[in-house]
Amino acid sequence: VFKVDWDPGMAEKAGFDHFMLKEIHEQPETLRRCIAGRLTETDIQLTDFTLTAQDIDSYNKIYIVAAGTAYNSGLVGKYAIEKLAKIPVEIDVASEFRYRDPLVDESTLVIVVSQSGETADTLAALREAQDKGAKVVAICNVVGSTIAREADEVIYIQAGPEIAVASTKAYIGMLMSFYMLAIYFARAKNTLSDIDSKRLIAGLKALPNQVEDIINNSEEEIKELSKGYADHEHAFFIGRSIDYAVAVEGQLKLKEVSYIHAEAYPAGELKHGTLALIEEGIPVIALATQKSVIDKTLSNVKEVKARGGVVTGIVFEGEDEVEDLDYRIEIPKTDELLTAILSVVPTQLLAYYVAVERGCDVDQPRNLAKSVTVE
Amino acid sequence: VFKVDWDPGMAEKAGFDHFMLKEIHEQPETLRRCIAGRLTETDIQLTDFTLTAQDIDSYNKIYIVAAGTAYNSGLVGKYAIEKLAKIPVEIDVASEFRYRDPLVDESTLVIVVSQSGETADTLAALREAQDKGAKVVAICNVVGSTIAREADEVIYIQAGPEIAVASTKAYIGMLMSFYMLAIYFARAKNTLSDIDSKRLIAGLKALPNQVEDIINNSEEEIKELSKGYADHEHAFFIGRSIDYAVAVEGQLKLKEVSYIHAEAYPAGELKHGTLALIEEGIPVIALATQKSVIDKTLSNVKEVKARGGVVTGIVFEGEDEVEDLDYRIEIPKTDELLTAILSVVPTQLLAYYVAVERGCDVDQPRNLAKSVTVE
Repeated sequence: VFKVDWDPGMAEKAGFDHFMLKEIHEQPETLRRCIAGRLTETDIQLTDFTLTAQDIDSYNKIYIVAAGTAYNSGLVGKYAIEKLAKIPVEIDVASEFRYRDPLVDESTLVIVVSQSGETADTLAALREAQDKGAKVVAICNVVGSTIAREADEVIYIQAGPEIAVASTKAYIGMLMSFYMLAIYFARAKNTLSDIDSKRLIAGLKALPNQVEDIINNSEEEIKELSKGYADHEHAFFIGRSIDYAVAVEGQLKLKEVSYIHAEAYPAGELKHGTLALIEEGIPVIALATQKSVIDKTLSNVKEVKARGGVVTGIVFEGEDEVEDLDYRIEIPKTDELLTAILSVVPTQLLAYYVAVERGCDVDQPRNLAKSVTVE
Repeated sequence: VFKVDWDPGMAEKAGFDHFMLKEIHEQPETLRRCIAGRLTETDIQLTDFTLTAQDIDSYNKIYIVAAGTAYNSGLVGKYAIEKLAKIPVEIDVASEFRYRDPLVDESTLVIVVSQSGETADTLAALREAQDKGAKVVAICNVVGSTIAREADEVIYIQAGPEIAVASTKAYIGMLMSFYMLAIYFARAKNTLSDIDSKRLIAGLKALPNQVEDIINNSEEEIKELSKGYADHEHAFFIGRSIDYAVAVEGQLKLKEVSYIHAEAYPAGELKHGTLALIEEGIPVIALATQKSVIDKTLSNVKEVKARGGVVTGIVFEGEDEVEDLDYRIEIPKTDELLTAILSVVPTQLLAYYVAVERGCDVDQPRNLAKSVTVE
């Protein structure tokens, strides 16, 4: 008998060591599929959507409800929708929302997000919202899933099957879906001019190639960098505004696959307690892409450096005034609002390579399941 | 020359080793001062308040803005106000709010919270809110502070001088202020019946003695318990609904004074990533007082135990069905909504004794200042 050391999954990994890495590399393609047929020069087309401009105008509040990585995508969604469509957005964890007796009625639009479309708490939240009279939009990956079927409207993110427990391409597809929704709502509400809409949509179209560039240009560098992280048991991610939202996803990814105790903070909150944990050698990842707050973030970076923290910055290329970084990962320029789709990529690669360096089971982290179908 | 090893502070510590412990013990008195003259049998009297019932009815949204521990008190405030007065409440970190271009106008009431009344970001947020036409209520401790002077209405929490950097009695005074405000708003909006209001106010009146009981009954036990925590570098606090809000304050206190990397999670979110960090011996503090979600929280406790986590539960006395705990700290029964003022006390004592056990400079944690008057 000739024994082959063969794992049926290997064939499907397309030459990558893990599904997670394969899926990180699939993100440009995910984004291309996600926008395919949905962008005109100035508008977003959501062909299956039945919500009218009048409906959209009638909502005085949007509630985003999700769990885990999907929740983190909603943090970005909140920014985008409030900024462009000027509708107040509240975001809540599904397992909290469903027991909160939330203030939701017909004038509220609820957006639920779930890769699998089967997340138990998110499904229960959807039903709770509908019971209270709200319309529900679902952002899902798995076609025909329970959440997709029960929601009033669905945006499929078109990421294809995601196998790794730690979500990457589904997250980036969720972000793209939120950006499209935000523009869609803003156009319906007349809060976004033709010129600005054109500019943003051109920005969306450029993102797939830009993500590809980030992977091509920084993967080796991040692989090297990750060696310095493997011995640490703590890490902090900081940022302000959208950078903070991405920091939250960055820390979760690192936690999930490397078991490093990572935590994200709005950079301005550090001084209110967490700065006490910064000591010699502690790794800090600073996302600093937002022009309006970059000086403030960099002044927080200085405080971290003064206590011995080792700072890796994720910044736009050409931001030469950004000093004080120990390591620097550059991402291509885009509209500041769209930055999340780019800045998250280095954090995914970092989580992956740190986990590999630590010998973790990247695709199947201990204690975790791909979709959380129990409460 | 006769040299006395004397520290001018010692005289003021009233026999306690640290200001933090002294201030924890002052909490019953803080609460008594905070409610003095403000409670009738069925109503809250805020004598300096000029907001009319009509004003309160006109707000379609409340925004709570604060930083650090004051922010954490707002997490409880959000629950209380939404639950009783049915006004949607959004909460934001001051350093984020001020740069967010928040959706705030005359129909929004903004509540800022700051012990010192000088927190730079919170002051800037107050001004930003007023610029946008909103009325601002301040919850402050220091009389005549800048925030107290610039706000449209002030509630002084009457905690007296707080010296320890890590806030305890000011936090508990902020909670009491929020509970009073919530009832005040609810009565103005007719969303709280006489009977329910009476019951809640009786509950508020009982809290000072109940806090005293917790300190008397559990301080020694917690001191013992804390020895088992001193060697750990990680800890997690979990809970649902108000228990989660208190968990957030519990982790911050432990971080600030012991430098243990503590983090709080809504219990239902654990499975979405953080469960990967639970391994043999990891300390987990589970707050489980809320009847509507206690089964769910306890099922999360089981998952933690199955991975080797060592769980300390904070539960109401007499909750005998609560099993699966390695250690159990009991608090007296109160209305579930008011539980935060009681359940936080064991977490404060735990943070204090763990820090002492680790030899930390409890009253002056490294890197931190009492009031953050720079950005």
